Amino acid sequence: MPLWDYHTPGIPDELFERIEEVPITKEDIRALAICKLRLKEGNSAIDIGCGSGSITVELCLQTMGNVYAIDFDKKAVELTKKNLQKFGVKAEEVIQAKAQDALPRLPKVDAIMVGGTWGDTKQLIELAIGKLKNGGRIVIDTILIETMYQALTAVNELELNEIDITQVTISKARKVTTGTMMLARNPVMIISATKA
Amino acid sequence: MPLWDYHTPGIPDELFERIEEVPITKEDIRALAICKLRLKEGNSAIDIGCGSGSITVELCLQTMGNVYAIDFDKKAVELTKKNLQKFGVKAEEVIQAKAQDALPRLPKVDAIMVGGTWGDTKQLIELAIGKLKNGGRIVIDTILIETMYQALTAVNELELNEIDITQVTISKARKVTTGTMMLARNPVMIISATKA
Repeated sequence: MPLWDYHTPGIPDELFERIEEVPITKEDIRALAICKLRLKEGNSAIDIGCGSGSITVELCLQTMGNVYAIDFDKKAVELTKKNLQKFGVKAEEVIQAKAQDALPRLPKVDAIMVGGTWGDTKQLIELAIGKLKNGGRIVIDTILIETMYQALTAVNELELNEIDITQVTISKARKVTTGTMMLARNPVMIISATKA
Repeated sequence: MPLWDYHTPGIPDELFERIEEVPITKEDIRALAICKLRLKEGNSAIDIGCGSGSITVELCLQTMGNVYAIDFDKKAVELTKKNLQKFGVKAEEVIQAKAQDALPRLPKVDAIMVGGTWGDTKQLIELAIGKLKNGGRIVIDTILIETMYQALTAVNELELNEIDITQVTISKARKVTTGTMMLARNPVMIISATKA
């Protein structure tokens, strides 16, 4: 039986292989980001900054289409491959490179997830949008004010449609001896838009 | 073409028919709640306090199974029916009643969404869990401290598995003349669990 045979996204974090040095997009933010990509069966997608590969796995499960994952970090690429195998899905390619270097040779796709950026964020987002088919969706997750600003600037300048900017702050319950307390996580900004 | 033909949940709020007196579970909270139900094709579900029917519609789209919607308010029942029609899906029944009165005659289901409660919340949740199949999921959305407390008490006492308590605070961007500001929404608590 496959590890996740549900129709809905939002795989619990603990089902993924993890290592300390490689970040993971946590369950709730990941579920929201995947939903904002508005995926269909057969869609193709690129996951930029795939980290642990949790988004890559969800993209594969939701689309059953061609999914490309990119990360600069060798450990992230290895971990993504391990997680794809764990969930019994296959990405078209898991590429160890800077996104700026890998994107030009990839085909146009229906959905692009930007989970991590380095170097010139605005330029990267412009490059990514260039790889989107018309009507395709881009989702940018960020915790950095600088990325937020540059992503917003790029999205506004390129005159995308259905722009949605959502800040999400999650708290999770923890049992303590005297009751149940809520532990706060950091706010995450999710920027999403449709290419005209 | 159907109004929403994506594999992923999270239909934009503006696609639903709405009236002022009937509440809607907004897009981001709705997407998260639906994901936490961990739905499969063919699943059956009950939507308690269906309001505008936005959750009912998503339940139908994700499961293509038997979905029951309940609301005490006649306007909510009418609006839910209107929205089901708008999205080209059919619920098994849309019931105008107190959940406590309607639940006993319904069959056991795979997923129960509690979006609104009235009367004795703890008793209602116990009744709802009685209508869950083993391995089924319950998700309780609430903005009231009293509901939160009673739901937590019920969930703990009934010894459910995989209990997750997530508080979500969403802010949305609004363009103002000088830039982009974030408008805060109220925190929502999403309690989810699996019946052993």
